[in-house]
Amino acid sequence: MSHSIKDIASSLGLVAEGDTDLIVIGVAEPASATADQLALAMRPEYAEALGRGQARVAMLWADADWRSYGLQAAILSKRPRYAMAGLSAIMDPGQGYSSGVHPAALVDPTAVLGQGVSVGPYSIISAGARIGAGAVIGPQCHIGWDAHIGDDALLHSGVRIGARVRIGARFIAQPGAVVGADGFSFVTPEVSGVERARDTLGETGTDTAQSWARIHSLGSVTLGDDVELGANTCIDRGSVRDTSVGDGCKFDNLVQVGHNVIIGQDCLICSQVGIAGSTVIGRNVVLGGQTGVSDNLRIGDNVITGGGTKVLSSVPAGRVMLGYPAVKMETHIESYKALRRLPRLLRDIAKSQKAVSKPDETD
Amino acid sequence: MSHSIKDIASSLGLVAEGDTDLIVIGVAEPASATADQLALAMRPEYAEALGRGQARVAMLWADADWRSYGLQAAILSKRPRYAMAGLSAIMDPGQGYSSGVHPAALVDPTAVLGQGVSVGPYSIISAGARIGAGAVIGPQCHIGWDAHIGDDALLHSGVRIGARVRIGARFIAQPGAVVGADGFSFVTPEVSGVERARDTLGETGTDTAQSWARIHSLGSVTLGDDVELGANTCIDRGSVRDTSVGDGCKFDNLVQVGHNVIIGQDCLICSQVGIAGSTVIGRNVVLGGQTGVSDNLRIGDNVITGGGTKVLSSVPAGRVMLGYPAVKMETHIESYKALRRLPRLLRDIAKSQKAVSKPDETD
Amino acid sequence: MSHSIKDIASSLGLVAEGDTDLIVIGVAEPASATADQLALAMRPEYAEALGRGQARVAMLWADADWRSYGLQAAILSKRPRYAMAGLSAIMDPGQGYSSGVHPAALVDPTAVLGQGVSVGPYSIISAGARIGAGAVIGPQCHIGWDAHIGDDALLHSGVRIGARVRIGARFIAQPGAVVGADGFSFVTPEVSGVERARDTLGETGTDTAQSWARIHSLGSVTLGDDVELGANTCIDRGSVRDTSVGDGCKFDNLVQVGHNVIIGQDCLICSQVGIAGSTVIGRNVVLGGQTGVSDNLRIGDNVITGGGTKVLSSVPAGRVMLGYPAVKMETHIESYKALRRLPRLLRDIAKSQKAVSKPDETD
Repeated sequence: MSHSIKDIASSLGLVAEGDTDLIVIGVAEPASATADQLALAMRPEYAEALGRGQARVAMLWADADWRSYGLQAAILSKRPRYAMAGLSAIMDPGQGYSSGVHPAALVDPTAVLGQGVSVGPYSIISAGARIGAGAVIGPQCHIGWDAHIGDDALLHSGVRIGARVRIGARFIAQPGAVVGADGFSFVTPEVSGVERARDTLGETGTDTAQSWARIHSLGSVTLGDDVELGANTCIDRGSVRDTSVGDGCKFDNLVQVGHNVIIGQDCLICSQVGIAGSTVIGRNVVLGGQTGVSDNLRIGDNVITGGGTKVLSSVPAGRVMLGYPAVKMETHIESYKALRRLPRLLRDIAKSQKAVSKPDETD
Repeated sequence: MSHSIKDIASSLGLVAEGDTDLIVIGVAEPASATADQLALAMRPEYAEALGRGQARVAMLWADADWRSYGLQAAILSKRPRYAMAGLSAIMDPGQGYSSGVHPAALVDPTAVLGQGVSVGPYSIISAGARIGAGAVIGPQCHIGWDAHIGDDALLHSGVRIGARVRIGARFIAQPGAVVGADGFSFVTPEVSGVERARDTLGETGTDTAQSWARIHSLGSVTLGDDVELGANTCIDRGSVRDTSVGDGCKFDNLVQVGHNVIIGQDCLICSQVGIAGSTVIGRNVVLGGQTGVSDNLRIGDNVITGGGTKVLSSVPAGRVMLGYPAVKMETHIESYKALRRLPRLLRDIAKSQKAVSKPDETD
Repeated sequence: MSHSIKDIASSLGLVAEGDTDLIVIGVAEPASATADQLALAMRPEYAEALGRGQARVAMLWADADWRSYGLQAAILSKRPRYAMAGLSAIMDPGQGYSSGVHPAALVDPTAVLGQGVSVGPYSIISAGARIGAGAVIGPQCHIGWDAHIGDDALLHSGVRIGARVRIGARFIAQPGAVVGADGFSFVTPEVSGVERARDTLGETGTDTAQSWARIHSLGSVTLGDDVELGANTCIDRGSVRDTSVGDGCKFDNLVQVGHNVIIGQDCLICSQVGIAGSTVIGRNVVLGGQTGVSDNLRIGDNVITGGGTKVLSSVPAGRVMLGYPAVKMETHIESYKALRRLPRLLRDIAKSQKAVSKPDETD
């Protein structure tokens, strides 16, 4: 894992200045960097701490005066955060999964593994499954019956892929992610209290007791290329057709995607987001942490929600949303500020009413 | 998986009309159905798309004029969504778990398996466990010491059942579900800041630092018959007695049920709901996605909460609740509409005050 | 598991009165206790039920008149809830994991196990890992490359510890917990809609489509001593330095801790809480269930949040917070009460305006 500054800069298509033959063995924050680490100081305010560490070389912003920080060399980037993507890929030591099919893995004879696939111990590749070339199936994973996973996938430990799921190339799944659990779809023999409440917006009725009959999920899940799933994130199968996720979508940990949901490409879905059944989400949508989206809605392209937003109705493209229920961020802020002033307004009104109603006392 | 229309209708107790000898091999949405699939068009607005697909036969609502859609046969149902439950059970190809006890499964000699039980590879059945007849324990599951699971259970991959848990018949658990983790119960040697805040509703005090001592969960978990758990859902054990879930309750993915909680029968608990310790929930309750229920509350029968509702106090039977803190849905809507009008009201008041306070300028 | 009342009281440093040679084999709630169980009645209101059970001995509050409840003996405690911690540890029968390294476990020859370590079936201890003396690694766990776990740890089934993670002594992890998944860190080649929305507080711009490049997590996770993790809880690795959790922190189920987060000691993090990347949390902080904390914030020591609180800005030490966005609990309650009165205020204003604007009609 040792690299010259020259080589790193060249790999990233960036300019390096100074003694670019210097060798680094890792990266560090400015204050804690040792002499053989590349310090990361993406903004001037972070660079101040370089003096507290031992770094001889740093990655800095485009026009940084690197010599003024006592450095011997620097890599300069107009968008250092983007450069960090490439740099971190070079520097990542990974999880150390062994190559090849481990003797304590079970691969069904009818499964088809591409060239160079590795399968970790206690993992299971079921009948009819197909794993693309170069894929790494970590330990203790379960790949279901007739599931297909594309080339160069990386599944960490304990990932569970259900029967008939279809996944594109370069899939990454963190530990415990579940693709293709059954959708949550139940029905009562007669009209239920929930259906009545939806129809009447609030009338519950005196529900006679009813039990729930299960609707089996006959669809599966289709994920595009370059999809990533966080730890313990769940994407349910569809009722009739597949639940579908576009190319380039990234999901954080503990996310829930319900049955029949359709998500466009390049969406960023933060931790603990829940998307209820049959909702359709556009492309380049960003849902902040703990956002909830109700069922059967349409969320347009480029929509962004702040953390904790609860989306209860469809949202046009390009909106930035916040609140519960979700409204445009500016509307939310306006309402919120007004609410903060409301207690005083009520006190003022009470005072003036008292003044009006008791004229004799105040005269 | 090929079935005649006649046989399907007969299994579901429904009327079929037209050429009921037609054979179908699966189901599909109207627009994408092939000639050998049964199209599902539960409402007139969905049936319009039949012309775009190849379906010769569809499941439709009770009095549908099926011939007008160019079909050769139809199955008619007064409540097609309910019929979908039976139909989907017939058509579900399942996950393909193999039968019998896999050689790479560990079954303790003191465990008792009923007739026809299957245990998947890398699963563990611990000492004293009992598995009812016909149960399917999928791959990589862990059934703890002295845990009992009823007949005809279906555990998908990686389900974890703790020691001494009791589960009724026809249990279904999606991948990664955890029953019987320890409750979250800690106590400080002296009165803690949390206890003070609860007593005073806001006074925090300058807490001297204290560490948390663990209260072990001596109770277990009891689940009734026909309970279903979603992927990565967690039901904690009780402190002294068992956490308890009634017959027929269905839980979606990533749900949290705390220690000592008691849930009545036939409740529907949607994804990412959290129910805190010692709360008691009635029967036929429906909690919408991301609902939170505080500890030690009582939620009456037939209560329904909308998505994202945070229930901070007990709720009488039959209420439909929404908001944070949860209130009756109609109260929430009224407050919400008023809040939307508040910014304008404040502007109007400011304007009129300005008019009153500066009479000379406006004259 | 049979203990004399004398021995229990002595272990807990408490006073026992009456026939302290009585033997109990377990604990129970007052109403359901059998004659050989110790009833737990921590407060007078719970003691009323002793008459409905068969208990001969109970644990009661300090000055309880135990003879009046028909008991033959009692253990008395000034803080019975704290006594419960010690008592439950004595009475816990545990999960029954077998000792030693199971033949169906894989321990890399370069891993170092301390004295008395047990490793359950289908668990994996990777190259370079170190497990402290007396640790119990349950079944189906994965301990990654070069991960270190301290003495006397207890990992329940299916726990996943990533490469290079450092964990202190007496660690407890419930089933499915994940430490050291990759952080959720992505960047677009050009400035993204999210960055613009953050800068402008609401202007979304017409985002040209961009894909997300992954920033690899080069840091790991460091957990102090006496840390506990709930079922399916996730703590992500840091981007450059480690994500860090102080001694004595307890996490409930389904919690999310993002990359680079720093948490002080003795915090209590309830179920389904999410803490976004790079946020710094003080010591003795208590976050109620479903609390969300945005990224890059600072939460002071002794802060407490109520259930469902969404913290969108930094919080000074000692505050009790509630609401979305989070405010001081008293501010939240004041706003909330005012909001409840707002619809009536608006109606009154509308009425008086009508009266003013239509004088002829009302005359």
